[in-house]
Amino acid sequence: MLKTNAGRFFEDYTIGDVIHHAVPRTVSRGERALYHALYPARHALYSSDEFARASGLPESPLDDLAAFHVVFGKSVPDISLNAVANLGYAEGRWLKPVYAGDTLRSVSEVIGLKQNSSGKTGVVYVRTSGINQNDEPVMQFVRWVMVRKRDENAPAPETVVPELKGTLEIADLLIPEGLDFGKYDIALSGEPHRWGDYQIGEKIDHVDGVTIEEAEHMMATRLWQNTAKVHFDATHRDDGQRLIYGGHVISMARALSFNGLANAQMIIGLNGGAHANPCFSGDTVRAWSEVLDKADTNTPSVGAVRLRLVAYKSDAVFQLKQENGKYMPQVLLDLDYWVVMPK
Amino acid sequence: MLKTNAGRFFEDYTIGDVIHHAVPRTVSRGERALYHALYPARHALYSSDEFARASGLPESPLDDLAAFHVVFGKSVPDISLNAVANLGYAEGRWLKPVYAGDTLRSVSEVIGLKQNSSGKTGVVYVRTSGINQNDEPVMQFVRWVMVRKRDENAPAPETVVPELKGTLEIADLLIPEGLDFGKYDIALSGEPHRWGDYQIGEKIDHVDGVTIEEAEHMMATRLWQNTAKVHFDATHRDDGQRLIYGGHVISMARALSFNGLANAQMIIGLNGGAHANPCFSGDTVRAWSEVLDKADTNTPSVGAVRLRLVAYKSDAVFQLKQENGKYMPQVLLDLDYWVVMPK
Amino acid sequence: MLKTNAGRFFEDYTIGDVIHHAVPRTVSRGERALYHALYPARHALYSSDEFARASGLPESPLDDLAAFHVVFGKSVPDISLNAVANLGYAEGRWLKPVYAGDTLRSVSEVIGLKQNSSGKTGVVYVRTSGINQNDEPVMQFVRWVMVRKRDENAPAPETVVPELKGTLEIADLLIPEGLDFGKYDIALSGEPHRWGDYQIGEKIDHVDGVTIEEAEHMMATRLWQNTAKVHFDATHRDDGQRLIYGGHVISMARALSFNGLANAQMIIGLNGGAHANPCFSGDTVRAWSEVLDKADTNTPSVGAVRLRLVAYKSDAVFQLKQENGKYMPQVLLDLDYWVVMPK
Repeated sequence: MLKTNAGRFFEDYTIGDVIHHAVPRTVSRGERALYHALYPARHALYSSDEFARASGLPESPLDDLAAFHVVFGKSVPDISLNAVANLGYAEGRWLKPVYAGDTLRSVSEVIGLKQNSSGKTGVVYVRTSGINQNDEPVMQFVRWVMVRKRDENAPAPETVVPELKGTLEIADLLIPEGLDFGKYDIALSGEPHRWGDYQIGEKIDHVDGVTIEEAEHMMATRLWQNTAKVHFDATHRDDGQRLIYGGHVISMARALSFNGLANAQMIIGLNGGAHANPCFSGDTVRAWSEVLDKADTNTPSVGAVRLRLVAYKSDAVFQLKQENGKYMPQVLLDLDYWVVMPK
Repeated sequence: MLKTNAGRFFEDYTIGDVIHHAVPRTVSRGERALYHALYPARHALYSSDEFARASGLPESPLDDLAAFHVVFGKSVPDISLNAVANLGYAEGRWLKPVYAGDTLRSVSEVIGLKQNSSGKTGVVYVRTSGINQNDEPVMQFVRWVMVRKRDENAPAPETVVPELKGTLEIADLLIPEGLDFGKYDIALSGEPHRWGDYQIGEKIDHVDGVTIEEAEHMMATRLWQNTAKVHFDATHRDDGQRLIYGGHVISMARALSFNGLANAQMIIGLNGGAHANPCFSGDTVRAWSEVLDKADTNTPSVGAVRLRLVAYKSDAVFQLKQENGKYMPQVLLDLDYWVVMPK
Repeated sequence: MLKTNAGRFFEDYTIGDVIHHAVPRTVSRGERALYHALYPARHALYSSDEFARASGLPESPLDDLAAFHVVFGKSVPDISLNAVANLGYAEGRWLKPVYAGDTLRSVSEVIGLKQNSSGKTGVVYVRTSGINQNDEPVMQFVRWVMVRKRDENAPAPETVVPELKGTLEIADLLIPEGLDFGKYDIALSGEPHRWGDYQIGEKIDHVDGVTIEEAEHMMATRLWQNTAKVHFDATHRDDGQRLIYGGHVISMARALSFNGLANAQMIIGLNGGAHANPCFSGDTVRAWSEVLDKADTNTPSVGAVRLRLVAYKSDAVFQLKQENGKYMPQVLLDLDYWVVMPK
């Protein structure tokens, strides 16, 4: 009997399958400190317990993206070990802040299957949920990946493509219970710009850049127990390069966006995202944002802003795509998400 | 008066000497988080407080190897600062799990001395114990190192070579108090294979590889306050390379062994080990294991398995030694240890 | 409206201005663990809660230099983002140990201004205080930086150069409340040398060296939320090198000084310091110390020692300066500070 996990192939997924991913994880202030060492993260709500308390929370939560990475990382051995490509995200919702001492596990349901015309691969859609020690969901997202077939002659399953919202509406999203920006201190948060100061269509260049190192992206990726070999084994790819976990670029870009979006405190929704080009050690990552939409919430002191976050390397380009519709070669990430801001 | 520590030479050891090593260390969940950032560690008992509680422990302990590294690291300034070689380990026993908040110190007793025929060096055998804030031993091991003489003309001490067990028997080992795998959840632990599924003689290729970086092995080694200069100072060796702490390779290989040995939860004994060849930054570390023995324990839900863990670089070789009896040049580590598994 | 922070220029400072720096930070045992991973820090008071308690403190504090880095880092966006040079430090005083769970913020008062004769730059003097969640100051220091003018034609402000003490006297400094070395254990602390064993004028070579890596200095600098781009962006300087945060060299040298100064437990005062030459990845950092002065304190078991700490790279030089008065090119740091030791 083979003891090691070779990962699942396209034939191994069935619509409605519920996969309980392995290795629950208790997070602590150690993970919080490491997040601050690995990314230039400065949003005050995640840096200061006092600031979090003044905002109606019991203490600083784990960064929303760290919670995402933990939940995502657990799904890798069952969903994307044999993935050819991570094709997209949709309907990401943060449902409950994660605090030191919480234990997270992940569960995915197979909600879509579509064999590709080549007959060699297929697309698998899963809805993945992160669940805490009280069996409460803390976040949820859909992703779809292209997976190899084990046997090219295996019959194609019935095609099921889930209906997914291209953009979540504010009514789909949850404002964390108790969150209140009524006493928000802009001297402590770092910038004066509130919800009312941002205009739809506005673009913000986040100025700073960070040159990526192998040791850092591997430590980050391991911390979320994401063990996909392409991130760690320099002999795996023909070019001898380790592919950087896309989530590392997301966290880097989000942290860089502090400069101009210091008051975009909490992420509450993920509409979609594309890892436009691969990122490698030595690349210098920069970011810009565009305000895509704004909305009121049912909490008077809290407004919601929908943002595009673009990470790119080397030269600044506000241009996203080429004439042929493909992303510019400098673009690493194109993310569409909802945040909350003080009004 | 010279204030700095030049380390001990062979003449400075006497049979029966008890050396209290300096700088006690309080461990926290910060060390636990760093362990997960530095190694692809996924054993559930060390990742989830809830899983540990379901196994009868109060919470996740510090990884057994992290406890070993802390205890070992404290002994370096007194035992191996002038060591030419770390020759072997024996009779390693984990006596009590280490939890966040525990403070560890180390004590070594000199149990053997043997001058080499060259007259320039000698072998020192010590039994090193890690002791917590309640003066309880948490682990113990014997190691022997080759140490330089300060003065080649100094008289040789009487030769004392301790009788050491080549292999610990199950009666020599302790199952942590309260440990109970009666409610063990294989969906959460990551693999279905229990104690009964492993056969003596079975070999397991752990598949994954990790390419080693300077920053990571130095952070790991410092974390255990092991300050042997050969690990940190690139100008120390003629070839400009920093030698990687052997314990870094042990932890890396053990973490990689999750893939195939996910249920080998706790290490309870170390029979022996050899650092077969040096490891340097840029090496890609892989691992395979062999089941050497199995035993019942006095806890009905808990079985013990004796494993050989081999770390190697580059090409996979199940072959350990060359015709001349020396290790193959790809082999980094050959470790012989006991673990517990659910029955 | 430009949303991003371009930093302040010389014209933006006025004598008496009080600047509340952004992003308070709660520190935890996670930061403590990272400090031990990033530096070869072994002073027992900061390593063991039990040792700290035996010295009259409630538990191990955050390393004094880590507290300094947090307070300093918060001031960077307002004080030194456009700084051409960090010119000096004075009157640094540690007023209260920082413990896990404390939340720190920083406030700076502008206490001096002097336009340079070129008319292009000026010197700004600030007194920066770190303040905890109970509004108690935990440390304070003066620093002065050379800052660019936005408009070279802007009128020069009235020159104000503050009177600063070249050296703090023992009466200016605080011994932490409750600190008592009456039961000091030299076996645990690592060296036998007490306050009485050090002579004014004595020099100590700290022996060990550490070769610096990009990933490590960036993680350290980020951990203190110091985001000055020159430390992170390899494309920022023409030579493609990332300049290492001067505080990284301070912490590295202080940690190396354990070997010979293991009982120099707590830093209580900073008289001055110069970053003599820039440090880059690949440099091997070494250190030596000179005993500049000694003093009694009002706590009978506690003595104070004034030390010069010199960090240098490559070849050992006890010589600090060249014939022209400039620092030798190997010298990285020349720091003048007060510590406490057991009598």
